[in-house]
Amino acid sequence: MDIAEFVEQSLGRWRSQRSAHHLAFSHFEAVTSIIDIVPLEEQDSDVIALCHSYQIDPELATHPFRMTWEGESDWEEGNIIKGTTILVPIPDQNDFTKGQLLRDQGYAETIPSVGDYQINPEGVFTLLTPYDRAMAEERIWFATPNLRFRVSLIRTSAGTGVVTASFSSEIRDLKSE
Amino acid sequence: MDIAEFVEQSLGRWRSQRSAHHLAFSHFEAVTSIIDIVPLEEQDSDVIALCHSYQIDPELATHPFRMTWEGESDWEEGNIIKGTTILVPIPDQNDFTKGQLLRDQGYAETIPSVGDYQINPEGVFTLLTPYDRAMAEERIWFATPNLRFRVSLIRTSAGTGVVTASFSSEIRDLKSE
Repeated sequence: MDIAEFVEQSLGRWRSQRSAHHLAFSHFEAVTSIIDIVPLEEQDSDVIALCHSYQIDPELATHPFRMTWEGESDWEEGNIIKGTTILVPIPDQNDFTKGQLLRDQGYAETIPSVGDYQINPEGVFTLLTPYDRAMAEERIWFATPNLRFRVSLIRTSAGTGVVTASFSSEIRDLKSE
Repeated sequence: MDIAEFVEQSLGRWRSQRSAHHLAFSHFEAVTSIIDIVPLEEQDSDVIALCHSYQIDPELATHPFRMTWEGESDWEEGNIIKGTTILVPIPDQNDFTKGQLLRDQGYAETIPSVGDYQINPEGVFTLLTPYDRAMAEERIWFATPNLRFRVSLIRTSAGTGVVTASFSSEIRDLKSE
């Protein structure tokens, strides 16, 4: 599987169940959300602007998309979690199974980020994103075409300790199609 | 990483946080437990008996171990989960990164099971165990030597639907060493 297939299989509306493990104090957090992943044009002005902000030729971008989520956490009652971000894959030109992924807003901190992705022969997409004070590590894979899983770790910037680990089960919302 | 290294790195006491996602009705279950993994002798009579029950030559077994767990689920108040099982790797003789794993009691059903394991170049141990009415799929990997993660899926026997997905964060209990 390369990044083009991975993005195509990811498009649509997903109902997500996410459990976060806050490891230092063994806390469980439960989040339910709706995630929408929609394709963007490679000529989209936001896509081009994001490439330029990293001094990357927009011609190298492929299958850009927007991800939007809205959900609720049990961490605090009535705590609504929502956001949207643009993601732009910049695959290695000779191997689309690896490359960079630009986004205009990260998970761990609300600043733009650039990560390195790789898709292994089993179809597991791994993304490593360094931040100032942390490293985010994500693994995403499809159990079936309509069910994907995501494991996200936040490591300390030294890369040694893991602060938070979370697991998402994402089921395609077929009613929305 | 081969099965010998994987088992050696797994030995010890682990504090586990597990989240189960019951997908059909979006239910979250939280389980905290203590897991002990202790090595067994290859000459252990229970190990030899387990091999014989599958008509496998006990000479092929390597790094057998016992896993014992005791924990509590929030599914029902005061619901204690405990058990113990013997696991016996039977690696392919020319490639220890794959083979069979025998156990005298399975996860999905309390009957003996035999699964096929494989350890990929990233160090992710995958185990597929067929049962009468279900297929269990587990992935286990180390984020650090003292932190391992486990994703477990229960698929319908046809292999299509996933009924339950769970995620465990297992932290080595250094105080016990």
